Amino acid sequence: MTRLALPLGSWGGEQIIHARHAKVPDHIAGALMAALRAGEQVRGATSPNPPVGAGVFDQDGQVISVGGTQPAGGPHAEVVALAAAGEHARGAEMVVTLEPCNHHGRTGPCSEAIKRAGIQRVWFCQKDPGEAEGGGAQRLRDAGVEVRAIELPVLALEPWLAAQRLQRPYVVGKVAQTIDGFVAAHDGSSKWITGSAARQFSHDVRANVDAIWVGTGTVLADNPRLTARGENGRDLPHQPQPVVVGTRPLPAELALKAPWRFSNIDLAMQTSWQRGHRHVLVEGGPGLLTSMLRSDLVDELHIYTAPKLLGAGKKCVDMLGESIDAAKTFEMSRVQMLQPDTCTVLKRKNHDDVHRNC
Amino acid sequence: MTRLALPLGSWGGEQIIHARHAKVPDHIAGALMAALRAGEQVRGATSPNPPVGAGVFDQDGQVISVGGTQPAGGPHAEVVALAAAGEHARGAEMVVTLEPCNHHGRTGPCSEAIKRAGIQRVWFCQKDPGEAEGGGAQRLRDAGVEVRAIELPVLALEPWLAAQRLQRPYVVGKVAQTIDGFVAAHDGSSKWITGSAARQFSHDVRANVDAIWVGTGTVLADNPRLTARGENGRDLPHQPQPVVVGTRPLPAELALKAPWRFSNIDLAMQTSWQRGHRHVLVEGGPGLLTSMLRSDLVDELHIYTAPKLLGAGKKCVDMLGESIDAAKTFEMSRVQMLQPDTCTVLKRKNHDDVHRNC
Ligand SMILES: NC(=O)c1ccc[n+]([C@@H]2O[C@H](COP(=O)([O-])OP(=O)(O)OC[C@H]3O[C@@H](n4cnc5c(N)ncnc54)[C@H](OP(=O)(O)O)[C@@H]3O)[C@@H](O)[C@H]2O)c1
Ligand SMILES: NC(=O)c1ccc[n+]([C@@H]2O[C@H](COP(=O)([O-])OP(=O)(O)OC[C@H]3O[C@@H](n4cnc5c(N)ncnc54)[C@H](OP(=O)(O)O)[C@@H]3O)[C@@H](O)[C@H]2O)c1
Repeated sequence: MTRLALPLGSWGGEQIIHARHAKVPDHIAGALMAALRAGEQVRGATSPNPPVGAGVFDQDGQVISVGGTQPAGGPHAEVVALAAAGEHARGAEMVVTLEPCNHHGRTGPCSEAIKRAGIQRVWFCQKDPGEAEGGGAQRLRDAGVEVRAIELPVLALEPWLAAQRLQRPYVVGKVAQTIDGFVAAHDGSSKWITGSAARQFSHDVRANVDAIWVGTGTVLADNPRLTARGENGRDLPHQPQPVVVGTRPLPAELALKAPWRFSNIDLAMQTSWQRGHRHVLVEGGPGLLTSMLRSDLVDELHIYTAPKLLGAGKKCVDMLGESIDAAKTFEMSRVQMLQPDTCTVLKRKNHDDVHRNC
Repeated sequence: MTRLALPLGSWGGEQIIHARHAKVPDHIAGALMAALRAGEQVRGATSPNPPVGAGVFDQDGQVISVGGTQPAGGPHAEVVALAAAGEHARGAEMVVTLEPCNHHGRTGPCSEAIKRAGIQRVWFCQKDPGEAEGGGAQRLRDAGVEVRAIELPVLALEPWLAAQRLQRPYVVGKVAQTIDGFVAAHDGSSKWITGSAARQFSHDVRANVDAIWVGTGTVLADNPRLTARGENGRDLPHQPQPVVVGTRPLPAELALKAPWRFSNIDLAMQTSWQRGHRHVLVEGGPGLLTSMLRSDLVDELHIYTAPKLLGAGKKCVDMLGESIDAAKTFEMSRVQMLQPDTCTVLKRKNHDDVHRNC
């Protein structure tokens, strides 16, 4: 096998992985791609469980069945794929984007279901870092199932894996700005800084997260709906939970549906985690985003940039550093063209020195 | 022919053109690529003449010789290529990135040289918009040489072609900023906002232009050299002319070598044009760049962006528009990754409503 084209979800396109991965033999490629796509498709709808994909296939690489994790309380990806395969699973192989779980959650351990179905070999991409869940691979081996780790990155799992390490939701901050860094003009006008491609893209991101956070300032200024909508303006199937942070009272009539309210960020983090959120999008405004950046709580930034210059107006964030060495520095991850705009994705520079909130 | 990979010069990589271009038959491909590359190689060194490339080839597509325009006073690309081909030019074909000239400049018209060399067919990519120069194709036809226009974009010629239309130098503005739009921190520190890849890239751009303009503010604050240097720190072969705009007196001892000085922008434009400049890079600072943006004199912007947030400091430009509708709006042309930074290239939105300065 020379190359694997991993789907990049709403980023569009593919990430091409070249095959130093001797660990990935030809006959699993079809099922691996199908499993990765199945995981992408359930993003946003699985928390607190991870968006996993699984595929069952035979020795010739023929895909027998595919599954993605169902919403909390429903079956995991492995169980969905096994149910679809039925008796064809006996003697077949399986590929899963995450190590099969070993805990008696609401649905029983996947490792047991795999053994029972008669799968003879399991391939998985990422290790499960959880304490209760880890050991699924060992348990399968003990039961006589062959297990191989293929160590491939899985985009859909990145926020969930980071959240497990951090023991708090993975935080993506969003900004829509002119290329000189303004989120609104001097006279307050900000509709529309970015165009329709950027707007639709940001709605697709909304559909992949558990919650959207905003400060009271944004609610009072813009009265946003914060729903995830498709190109036709209709609501997408998965809707994020709106969350408002701040102490000011809000009018009774709001466009937001049943927001959770928190008077401070720590409380918002803890409660969200306890209620099952693993991936949240902070859509601003500048006040809330600045607070979270100062507290080192932002893991990723999506900076939508229009090819416009204003020279004055409302800045996307407030003072973060007095000197250039004190600037908040991220890693440049990728730039997505969304004509006439771009979305620049920045990621936390050092995943080790993160602030553990809970 | 299904695809042509046009060189993108210092941008690296290639622009793939798919062959709706029935006008581009297989046998000219090799010479066309060689001519495009030859034109790229002489960028910056040919003004007021355009950086043209030419290739002579036989009926089988074998490249016989290649040439690029020499510095003003020297031979044009066609003459260089013909001289290298010698007797082999007789009966051969030629491809030129720009329509051959028809005027008795310092080197005599190229159309005559082509005829005299016995070239039987000429292909060219771009029409010469000049009055004195235009008509080269017609003159060749009148002399019995077959001429075909292939209408391919030529990156190296874009600034020169625009300058001919505008009758003033093509202006590229440059900014190095944090992603929230600051060119210096609150305490004035700005070294280094961007990293070594961005810095080297900007030196390669310097080597492609006729002049670098700065305001007196930048000279007084930074005392820059404004030379084009290679990775080893040594001067590149072509050095742009330093130009300082503003009225304040400058110290006698400057790092700048023999700068031209102008007290206002219009004078700088007119004089530069008259002295042969066609492509200038305005490296700031914010004061000069703002003035030029307000006067609609910026044709292209290179915004080098570091993945850093400051939240406060010196803005890359001053007030340009009170409301979002009044923002200066460009076209998003491309984004170049220069890890850990990016360079976003914006171009003038409407090439028709430009300010004609001279
Ligand atoms: N272009 C964009 O990307 C974008 C996105 C959103 C908003 N905006 C614009 O931004 C403007 C609003 O700006 P803003 O800064 O006022 O909005 P904001 O960030 O939504 O709200 C600020 C408020 O958030 C609360 N807050 C912030 N940090 C906190 C902390 N650590 N603990 C508790 N509460 C905290 C405070 O609420 P209390 O004062 O109530 O305690 C604070 O006043 C509007 O003009 C809007 O249109 C632009
Ligand atoms: N990061 C970057 O990309 C970058 C690049 C360059 C500079 N900088 C920083 O920017 C700061 C300097 O900013 P600055 O705005 O003072 O610098 P500047 O733009 O280089 O200089 C401003 C001066 O330019 C002259 N000028 C501007 N418009 C004019 C016009 N229409 N006609 C005639 N003269 C005109 C005026 O000179 P007179 O007052 O003399 O008449 C004006 O004071 C420094 O801190 C420097 O480090 C950053």
